[in-house]
Amino acid sequence: MLFDGVLAAGPVREAVSDRAWLQAMLDAEAALAGAGADVGLVPAEAAAAIAAACDAARYDVAELGRAAADSGNPAAPLARALTAEAGDAGRYVHFGATSQDIVDTAAMLVARSAREALLADLDACRAALAGLAATHRSTVHTGRTLLQQALPTTFGLVAAGWLTALSASGAALRSVSLPAQLGGAVGTLASLGTDGPAVVAAYARRLGLAEPALPWHTDRGVVAELAGALGRVCGSVAKIAGDVVLLAQTELGEVSEDAEGAGGSSTMPHKRNPVAAISALAAARQAPGLVATLFAAMPHEHQRAAGAWHAEWRPQRELLRATGSAVWWLRTSLSRLVVHPDRMRSNVDLTGGALLAERVTTALVPTVGRQPAHDAVAECVRAGGDLAAALAEHPALGLSRSRAAELLDPAGYLGAAEVFVDRALARYEEER
Amino acid sequence: MLFDGVLAAGPVREAVSDRAWLQAMLDAEAALAGAGADVGLVPAEAAAAIAAACDAARYDVAELGRAAADSGNPAAPLARALTAEAGDAGRYVHFGATSQDIVDTAAMLVARSAREALLADLDACRAALAGLAATHRSTVHTGRTLLQQALPTTFGLVAAGWLTALSASGAALRSVSLPAQLGGAVGTLASLGTDGPAVVAAYARRLGLAEPALPWHTDRGVVAELAGALGRVCGSVAKIAGDVVLLAQTELGEVSEDAEGAGGSSTMPHKRNPVAAISALAAARQAPGLVATLFAAMPHEHQRAAGAWHAEWRPQRELLRATGSAVWWLRTSLSRLVVHPDRMRSNVDLTGGALLAERVTTALVPTVGRQPAHDAVAECVRAGGDLAAALAEHPALGLSRSRAAELLDPAGYLGAAEVFVDRALARYEEER
Amino acid sequence: MLFDGVLAAGPVREAVSDRAWLQAMLDAEAALAGAGADVGLVPAEAAAAIAAACDAARYDVAELGRAAADSGNPAAPLARALTAEAGDAGRYVHFGATSQDIVDTAAMLVARSAREALLADLDACRAALAGLAATHRSTVHTGRTLLQQALPTTFGLVAAGWLTALSASGAALRSVSLPAQLGGAVGTLASLGTDGPAVVAAYARRLGLAEPALPWHTDRGVVAELAGALGRVCGSVAKIAGDVVLLAQTELGEVSEDAEGAGGSSTMPHKRNPVAAISALAAARQAPGLVATLFAAMPHEHQRAAGAWHAEWRPQRELLRATGSAVWWLRTSLSRLVVHPDRMRSNVDLTGGALLAERVTTALVPTVGRQPAHDAVAECVRAGGDLAAALAEHPALGLSRSRAAELLDPAGYLGAAEVFVDRALARYEEER
Amino acid sequence: MLFDGVLAAGPVREAVSDRAWLQAMLDAEAALAGAGADVGLVPAEAAAAIAAACDAARYDVAELGRAAADSGNPAAPLARALTAEAGDAGRYVHFGATSQDIVDTAAMLVARSAREALLADLDACRAALAGLAATHRSTVHTGRTLLQQALPTTFGLVAAGWLTALSASGAALRSVSLPAQLGGAVGTLASLGTDGPAVVAAYARRLGLAEPALPWHTDRGVVAELAGALGRVCGSVAKIAGDVVLLAQTELGEVSEDAEGAGGSSTMPHKRNPVAAISALAAARQAPGLVATLFAAMPHEHQRAAGAWHAEWRPQRELLRATGSAVWWLRTSLSRLVVHPDRMRSNVDLTGGALLAERVTTALVPTVGRQPAHDAVAECVRAGGDLAAALAEHPALGLSRSRAAELLDPAGYLGAAEVFVDRALARYEEER
Repeated sequence: MLFDGVLAAGPVREAVSDRAWLQAMLDAEAALAGAGADVGLVPAEAAAAIAAACDAARYDVAELGRAAADSGNPAAPLARALTAEAGDAGRYVHFGATSQDIVDTAAMLVARSAREALLADLDACRAALAGLAATHRSTVHTGRTLLQQALPTTFGLVAAGWLTALSASGAALRSVSLPAQLGGAVGTLASLGTDGPAVVAAYARRLGLAEPALPWHTDRGVVAELAGALGRVCGSVAKIAGDVVLLAQTELGEVSEDAEGAGGSSTMPHKRNPVAAISALAAARQAPGLVATLFAAMPHEHQRAAGAWHAEWRPQRELLRATGSAVWWLRTSLSRLVVHPDRMRSNVDLTGGALLAERVTTALVPTVGRQPAHDAVAECVRAGGDLAAALAEHPALGLSRSRAAELLDPAGYLGAAEVFVDRALARYEEER
Repeated sequence: MLFDGVLAAGPVREAVSDRAWLQAMLDAEAALAGAGADVGLVPAEAAAAIAAACDAARYDVAELGRAAADSGNPAAPLARALTAEAGDAGRYVHFGATSQDIVDTAAMLVARSAREALLADLDACRAALAGLAATHRSTVHTGRTLLQQALPTTFGLVAAGWLTALSASGAALRSVSLPAQLGGAVGTLASLGTDGPAVVAAYARRLGLAEPALPWHTDRGVVAELAGALGRVCGSVAKIAGDVVLLAQTELGEVSEDAEGAGGSSTMPHKRNPVAAISALAAARQAPGLVATLFAAMPHEHQRAAGAWHAEWRPQRELLRATGSAVWWLRTSLSRLVVHPDRMRSNVDLTGGALLAERVTTALVPTVGRQPAHDAVAECVRAGGDLAAALAEHPALGLSRSRAAELLDPAGYLGAAEVFVDRALARYEEER
Repeated sequence: MLFDGVLAAGPVREAVSDRAWLQAMLDAEAALAGAGADVGLVPAEAAAAIAAACDAARYDVAELGRAAADSGNPAAPLARALTAEAGDAGRYVHFGATSQDIVDTAAMLVARSAREALLADLDACRAALAGLAATHRSTVHTGRTLLQQALPTTFGLVAAGWLTALSASGAALRSVSLPAQLGGAVGTLASLGTDGPAVVAAYARRLGLAEPALPWHTDRGVVAELAGALGRVCGSVAKIAGDVVLLAQTELGEVSEDAEGAGGSSTMPHKRNPVAAISALAAARQAPGLVATLFAAMPHEHQRAAGAWHAEWRPQRELLRATGSAVWWLRTSLSRLVVHPDRMRSNVDLTGGALLAERVTTALVPTVGRQPAHDAVAECVRAGGDLAAALAEHPALGLSRSRAAELLDPAGYLGAAEVFVDRALARYEEER
Repeated sequence: MLFDGVLAAGPVREAVSDRAWLQAMLDAEAALAGAGADVGLVPAEAAAAIAAACDAARYDVAELGRAAADSGNPAAPLARALTAEAGDAGRYVHFGATSQDIVDTAAMLVARSAREALLADLDACRAALAGLAATHRSTVHTGRTLLQQALPTTFGLVAAGWLTALSASGAALRSVSLPAQLGGAVGTLASLGTDGPAVVAAYARRLGLAEPALPWHTDRGVVAELAGALGRVCGSVAKIAGDVVLLAQTELGEVSEDAEGAGGSSTMPHKRNPVAAISALAAARQAPGLVATLFAAMPHEHQRAAGAWHAEWRPQRELLRATGSAVWWLRTSLSRLVVHPDRMRSNVDLTGGALLAERVTTALVPTVGRQPAHDAVAECVRAGGDLAAALAEHPALGLSRSRAAELLDPAGYLGAAEVFVDRALARYEEER
C-alpha cells in the first residue's frame, strides 16, 4: 500500500483486488452449478444453494492463499471450502470443472470489470482532450522535432493527436473479446459425457462472457491480446504525459498542473511539479516488461502448463493495475492542466522567425530553386538578428520586407492543422 | 547470414531486406509525387519522371546507409539521391514530406508484404493442422497436465486446439490496419497549404494503404498493434512447436520429424532431432523482448521523437523476420511430421488404467459420494497392479469386474473431444 | 495474498513488505540524524529523540501511501509525520536530505535483508544439490540433448552442474555492493555547507551500507546490477526446476516430489505433480520482464527523473519477491525430491544400446575411419534389434561380440563425469 | 546496412560480423586440435594442418548458413567443411567436441573482441567527460528535478556524475569472465576418455579464455552476466545522451553538437539536431528487450536446450552491436559537444532567484523555524518580482537586503559540488 497511492491509483486497484478475484472465482462456480441445472445435470435447488454460498464474505482469502501452495492454485482449496459451505449441494460443486477453468474464467471476469473502470477514466481523458483541442484549435504552438523547435503548429492539433491516439488505444482494448473457459482436466469435459458443450454454452451465457469454440486452456491468445491492448493504452498515455512533463519544464512553461497540495516540493517552494503526469509515466513504464512476460508465457505445455499458466496471474493483475493507474493519473493531470498560450507564443518567437525558415524556403523554390533557396535562408538564419530584414536584403532572394514579414508570421503557416483538429473532434463526437 | 539458415528462414527475410526497404521508400516517394500530380501541385510529367527514377536498382544501399548517419535516417540521403536522379523533375521530389513520412510509410509497405508471405506459410500450417485433426479425430492420446499423464483425449483434439489458436492469431495479424503516413515536418503539412489532406488521400490510395484521420508520426499505436499481433503469432507457434518437441522425446515417441539430411546428429547417429520445431522455438523466443522494445518506444516526444522513432526500425524488422522464420519452420515441421498412434496408445496404457481414475471416481459419486469415491480410487491406484481387479475387489465401491474394465477404457471417456474437433474443422472450412 | 502462497512464498515476502519498507525509511532518517550528530550539526539528544521516533509501529502505512500521491513518493509525508512525532527534535528531521535519499537508501536496506533471506534458502539448495551430486556421483543417467536421448552421463554430474551454476549466481548476487544514498535536492548536499561529505560517510557507516564516491541519485547502475544478479539467480533456478519437471514426467519417472498433501490433483488421484518445482518456474518466469523494466528505467533525467525513478519501486520489490519465491520453492522441491535410479537405468537402456553409438563410432575411427564408422554404426542402429549382435556381424567393423558389448556398457563411457563431480564438490566445500 | 549507419555504428559491427564469427569458430577448432596435440591425442602435424585450414577466407559464409538449417547450427557444416579442407588431418577435426562447444567458445571470442573495441570507445568517452568535469568544475548550472528547475549545481558535477556512472558500467563489463566451453555431446567429454580435463585446460589456455570448472553448456550464467553488463552500459550511455538532448533543447540551449554536415534538417535550416546523442539513445533503447530475451533463455533443458540455446545467438550479437553503437555515438556526441556557460547562467537566473529558495529557508530555520521559514519564503516566491527585496521586506524573516542578495547568489550555494568533482577526477586518474 505504501506505493499504491502513486503507482496503483484509481478504481482498478479495487477491481483486481484479492476480494474481487475471490468473488470472481465464486461467480464462476455459481455459474457452473447454474449451467449444470440448465442442462439438467444438477438439481435446481442444489444450484441455488451453491449460488447462495458463493459470497466472498464467507471465505478467508489469506487462508485460501496459504492452502493454494499445496495444489499450486487457489481454485482447488476454494472448491473444497465451497463444497463444505454448500452443505448437501456440495456434491455438485465444481462439477466437471478443473481448477484452471475457474481461475481462467475469474481472470476474464476481473479483466472485464477492471476494463470497465479503466475505460471510464479513459473516456474522461478523451473528453478533456477534446475540450483542449476545441479551445486551442488555433492557438499557435511550437512544433518540436528531436526536441528542437521546428515549425509552428497549434496546441489544438497537439491535443487532437493525443485524443486520436488514446481513442484508438481505448477502442482496441474495448474490442478484446473475453471468453469463458470450461474444459475439465484436459479440455474434453469428459466427466460431463455428451453434455459438455451445452454446459459451456449455459456457463458463458450466465457469466455474460463469450462462448469459445474450444476450451482455450492452453491457447493463451486471449491473454496476449488483452496484454497487448493494455500495453498500447499505456504507450498512448505515456506519450501524452511525457509531453505534458516536457511542456511544463521551467524553461518552456507552456502548461502546468495546478492543484492544491499536490506537486509542491518539500524543500523547494517555487516548484510546481507535474506530479500527476509523472505518476502516469511511472505507471505506464511498467507495461512493456509485463507485456513481455505474458507473451513469453504463451506456450503452455500439452493440456496444462507447468509454470507458464501460474506465471500469468501476477503480471496480468499488475498490468491491469498499472494501466488503470496510468489512465487515472492522466485524467487527474488533464483535470489540473492549465495552458499558457502566452508562453506558447513567446516560445514560437524565441528564434526570431527562424521557425518559419521552411516556409520561406518553400515559397522561394519556384523562383530561386530548391537548393539555392535552402542555402540562402540557412545563411540568413545563421546570421542571427532580424530575420525579416536579412531575408529582404539577401541579393539572391528578391523578397520585399513586407512579404518577408508575412512569410514569417506563424499563424499563416499552419497548413491543415485546423482541418485535422476538426476531423479529430468530428470523429470523437461520432464515437462517444 | 551465418545464423539466417536457422533463425531467419523462409520468405520474410527477403521481404524485409535492405533492398525491399529501399524500394518501399522509393515507392513512397513515387506515390507522393503522383499524389502531387493528382491534386495539381506537381506536373504529371515530373511525377512520371520521379516514378521512373524510383527503382531500387539505381541506388547504393551501403552508401545510403553510411550517409544516413549524418541526418539520423536513410530517407534524407535518399531524397537527395532521388532528386539528382530525377533530373529536372528533382525539384518536386519529397515535396511537402519529411523524412519520417517516407520511413514510416515504407515500414508499412514492408510490413504488408512480409505479412503476406508470413500468412501464406501460416495458412499452410493451418491446412496441415486441419489434416491432422481430421485424421486423428479419434486417435486416443494421453492428455497431460503439468507434464504428468492426466486423462485421455484424442490427438485430433490436440491438433484442433493448435489449429484454432493459430487461426485466431493469424486473423488478428491479418486485421491490423496499415496506414500511410504523411504530415510534413510537424504534422501540419504546412508546405502544402490547403491541399494537404487531398494529397494524403491520393498518396494512401496510390499505395493501397489506409488513409489515417490524422498523421500518426507520434501516435505509434499502429506499430504497437502490429508488434502485439506478431508476438501473438509467435506465441501460438511456440505452443505447437513446443508440444512437438515434447511429444518427440525419446521416451514418448508419439511424433517425429522425418526428413532426409535434417535432424541427424554429427556424433549420435541414432538421434532424430526435431530440428524444424526447435528452430521454430528459437525464432519465436525472440518475440517477447522485441515486442517490449516496441511498446517501450511508443512515447514519442512532441512532433518527432529523439531516439524512440529510430529505435523502432531494428526490432520491427527483427520481429517480422523472427515471426516469419517461426512460421516457416512450423510449416516445415508439420510437413515432416510423422504421427505414431501406436506409441500414443501404449503411453495411454502406461499407468495401467490409472489415467481413468477421474472417470471411475465420477461414475461412483452418485452411489458412493464424492470424497469416499475419490479416496477409494486413489487407494486402488496407489496399490499398483491390475487396477480393474483392485476396483472390483474394493469393498466400498460395489463394482463388477466388467463394469470396472469398461470404465477403464480410454476410448469411452473422451467427452466432447470429437465434437470439438468437428467444430474446429467446420470453422476452418468457413474461414479459409 | 490469494496468489502469494504460490508466487510469493518464503521469507522474502516479509522482507520486502510495506512494514519492512517503512522501517527501512525510518532507519535511514535515524541514521541521518545520527550522522548529523556525529559531525556536530545536530544535538545528540535531538538525534536520539529522532531515533526513538523511528519505529514503524508508530506510523500508518495506508495513510502514508495515500498521502504519497500528493508529492509523488512516500518519504515526503513520512518526513512530515516523523517531524511531528519527534517533538522538539523535529526541526532536525530530514536535515539536508531529499525524499529520494530516503527512498533510495531504504531500497538498499530492504534489498540487503531480502538478499540475506534469499541467500540462506539458496545455500540450503546448494547443500541439497551437493548431497545429490555426492550420492549419485556414479549413478548412470541418460544425457539428453534437444530432449532426445544422447549419451550416458551420471545424475551426480547433472546435480553438480546445477550446483555450480546456482553457486555462481548466488555469489554474483552476494557481491553486489549496496551503497547509501545522500545528496540533497540536486546531489550537492548544499544545505549541509561543507559538511556534506562527512555526513554521508557517517550515514553510510551507521547503516552498514557502502559509502559511494558520489551521490548516485541518477546513476542507476546499482539498481541494474542488483536486477541483473536477481535475474540470473532466477535463470539458474529455472534451469534446475525445469529439469526436475522434465525428469518427473510420467514417461521418464526419474525423480518425483514426495510430500504429504502437496501435488495431488483434485480430480486425478494417481498424479504426483511436482508442485514445488512448478511454482519455482512460475516465480522465475517473472524475472526477465522485471529486469527489462529496471534496465529501461536507468536513464534518469537531469538531477531527478520524472517517472523513471518512481517506476523502479514495484519491479524491484517484485523481482526480489519473485526471486525469493523461486529459490524457496526450489529448496522445497529439493527437500522433497526422490531419485529413482532404477528408472534412470531403464531409460538408459531404452534404445537398446543406441545411446552408446558415439562411443562405438569413436572406438572404430582409428581402424575404420570416421565417416565409414559413422555410417556403419548408424546402419546398425537403424536396423533395430540387438545392437551388439548387429555390430559384431557388420562386415566393415571387425568387432567381436564381447568387445561390442563392452563398448555398449554405459557405465564404461562416462568420460570426466566423476572428475567433474569431484571438482564441483571440492569447490562447494571451499566456498561454503 | 540501410540502418547500420545510425544503429550499428562504430567498430563493434565488424567485430560481431559473420566473418568474425566464422573465424572465431575456426579459432576454436584450431585450438581444439592444438589442445589434442598438447596432450598427445592428436599428432602435432595434424594439428598444424588443421590450424592452417582454419582461415575464414577459405569458407563460404552464405553456404554454411544455408547448411546450418539441416542440423540447427553452423558449427556442424563447418566441421564437415574443415574436415575436407584439412586433408589427411581431417580425421582429427572436431575431435571430442560437439557443435555447441564450438559455437559457445566462438561466442566468447567474439564477445571478447567486441568488448575490447567497445571499451576503447567507452574510455574515450570517459576522457571527454573527465575533461568536461575539470573544465566546468565551477560552472554554475541549473539542477533540475522532475524537469523543473530546483537548485544550482555545477556542470562539472553533472559531467562527473556521468563519468562515474559510465566508469562503473565499463568496469563491470570489463570484469565479466569469458570462459572456453568444451564438454562433448553431454558434458562428459566421454570420447576423450580420461584426457578430457587436460584437453579443456589446454584449449582454454590456447584461446586465452578462462578455464571453467565444469562445462557450462547448460549453465548460461555467463551469457546472462555479459548481457546484464552490456545492458548496464547502455543505461549509463542513455542517461548521458538523454541529458545532452534535454540540455540541447532550443529553449535551454546549454549544450549543442557542432559538426559539419551532421544534424542539419533537410527542411529546417535553423535546426542543430543533436544527432549523435539521439542515435546513441536509439541504440541504447534496444538493450532492455535483448537483455530480457537472453535472461528468459537461461533455462536450458537437460544437456542441451531445444531452442533456448539457438535463441541466444541473435540477441547476443544485437546487444553487442547496439551497445557498441551506443558508446560510439556517445563518443561522437561528446567529441562534438559545445558547452554554453552563458546560457547555463541565464537559465539559473530565469526564476529571479527562486532557485535559491531552499537555501534561504535553510538559513532561516535556526531563527524562524522550519515551517514558518518555508511558508514565508514560498509566499515571497509566489509573489514574483524582485525576490531579494521581497525577502528583505517580509516581516517574519528579519533579513537585510544584502544578506538576502548573498543568500540568492547561486555560486555560494553549491555544497559539495566541487569536492565531488575532485573525487570523481581523482578516481578517474587512478583507474585509467
